[in-house]
Amino acid sequence: PFTDLEDQQVQRHGERELIRRIMDWLGDVSPPSPHGIGDDAAVINFTKDNLVITKDSLVFGKHFNEEASAELAGAKLIKRNVSDIAAMGASPLHAIVACLLPPSTSIDWLKDFYRGLRKTSEAFNIKLVGGDITSTFQDLAFTLTLVGTHAGKSLTRKTGKPGDTLWVSGSLGGSILQKHLTFTPRLQEGKWLAGHPAVHSGMDISDGLATDLLHLCPPRCCLEIDSDAIPISNDAMRLSKQSGKEAIYHALTDGEDYELLFTVGNDKNPIEFIQEWKDQFETDISCIGKVVTQSSQDQHSIQYRGSYSLEKSQGYEHFK
Amino acid sequence: PFTDLEDQQVQRHGERELIRRIMDWLGDVSPPSPHGIGDDAAVINFTKDNLVITKDSLVFGKHFNEEASAELAGAKLIKRNVSDIAAMGASPLHAIVACLLPPSTSIDWLKDFYRGLRKTSEAFNIKLVGGDITSTFQDLAFTLTLVGTHAGKSLTRKTGKPGDTLWVSGSLGGSILQKHLTFTPRLQEGKWLAGHPAVHSGMDISDGLATDLLHLCPPRCCLEIDSDAIPISNDAMRLSKQSGKEAIYHALTDGEDYELLFTVGNDKNPIEFIQEWKDQFETDISCIGKVVTQSSQDQHSIQYRGSYSLEKSQGYEHFK
Repeated sequence: PFTDLEDQQVQRHGERELIRRIMDWLGDVSPPSPHGIGDDAAVINFTKDNLVITKDSLVFGKHFNEEASAELAGAKLIKRNVSDIAAMGASPLHAIVACLLPPSTSIDWLKDFYRGLRKTSEAFNIKLVGGDITSTFQDLAFTLTLVGTHAGKSLTRKTGKPGDTLWVSGSLGGSILQKHLTFTPRLQEGKWLAGHPAVHSGMDISDGLATDLLHLCPPRCCLEIDSDAIPISNDAMRLSKQSGKEAIYHALTDGEDYELLFTVGNDKNPIEFIQEWKDQFETDISCIGKVVTQSSQDQHSIQYRGSYSLEKSQGYEHFK
Repeated sequence: PFTDLEDQQVQRHGERELIRRIMDWLGDVSPPSPHGIGDDAAVINFTKDNLVITKDSLVFGKHFNEEASAELAGAKLIKRNVSDIAAMGASPLHAIVACLLPPSTSIDWLKDFYRGLRKTSEAFNIKLVGGDITSTFQDLAFTLTLVGTHAGKSLTRKTGKPGDTLWVSGSLGGSILQKHLTFTPRLQEGKWLAGHPAVHSGMDISDGLATDLLHLCPPRCCLEIDSDAIPISNDAMRLSKQSGKEAIYHALTDGEDYELLFTVGNDKNPIEFIQEWKDQFETDISCIGKVVTQSSQDQHSIQYRGSYSLEKSQGYEHFK
């Protein structure tokens, strides 16, 4: 399964290209989103409520390292998946975990990791219904599948309309300093958005705003972003001093924000929408741009307005 | 997460001990089997039909190697999970796959792997509803979660009764020579068994008969096994010539048979039961022993009768 030919290596292609290929390879076996690949979780039609299913992995040295406590690492595995369920406007129900463990994995460490799984499952009222343990040669990894349900409509990615305003919760960037471990998935917020009649589309931001914006962009549209409206986190500013890059660059490109990105119909007054939100939640929201019809070759692109612009998508990329 | 202290390494404990600890660590977050850990798949109570969910991984160098075609490896990932669903008497519906890929993973190889996923999904009428791609440092691994459903009762492990006869489908041992890649999960057989009023318990044999028997043994019972009745595969005999060990040893201890192991009430005439089975399926079945009440310290053990006996459980163990 390995090759020395660089052209043939997954690292040359990147995740989005790989997903595109996989969808191509799978053909009809993978139903169209939201019932298959292409959204934060898959909706399974079922008798009464709709089931939602999602899967996310955690690899030592990639998503956490020696500096993270085992308990926070376990919590993160659950929360990453809860964030995907939240982004669908659903509620988590059941989880199943696969452990991929090299022989020298420490039992004590694993116990603390499971304490994190347990506490976080309790906090979100999730039942861990099973799992699988497999040995590896070197890598330590975990994969969690989370099943959830939603009674009403789900919050999907590609359903925004031209004229929609574009919003994000919280503030962005610098997650590597702490938030990637300590974040709270926006579960109540996601449910509220899914039930709001003016909200047309939504997702969570996990690969960085600049990358994830492309996933939200509806067909035959582009997104106009006001770079001066992007909420920059304190950690993005702190990181900027270390990296020498601008804080806005971190807000646009750093991964693992776990905030919500969504669109609201242009017949909804933004001031009114903010007030409705503030009646429910303490988290801030910011209007950062809009969805614009685009018939030319600039379809499905991000057009930056304001004092900063990125040349092209530079979000988090797994294989770079 | 790693330790040099051998006592503290997962390899010193083995999978069953690890699962026991995990159940302990999880407490109430993991509901009792069959709604949680401890059976081939987890039953999720739902409005009308019951959902069943299972998860199994595939690691390069452990479950397949350079000698296996990528397509057969992909097929195996699906079939391993279908076998678990079959062992519950359920039907597979939706799958979600996680890819854990080192940077040098070959795209061409991956394409062939997905062809195997696709063909096998089509054969079992499974929809692949999503996935996740993550990079690793060295190990190549895949994890599949399979959701299924069953209308009637599910076939669970611990529900055998004293006096039950003990049965296996097919023949056992030597799977490493080819069957671990080419097997057909006993899907129709599992459904038929789950619906049969005389069948009390069942599971699939994936870690070797000697190990899996312990999983099937009901509380306050032991299992009496007639070693002369165990169906030995041709490949177990072939492997015996290479290994210098007896063929029956391979039938008892080799992993990855993917056959069904089940118990039948003692009011059911075995000849009659065999006839009913033969009216449905070409696969052989063999009666290999019975469930016996055991109040002494030999509870939950395997008592061998006949010309061969194993000292103690010597089935496949992931970390040895």
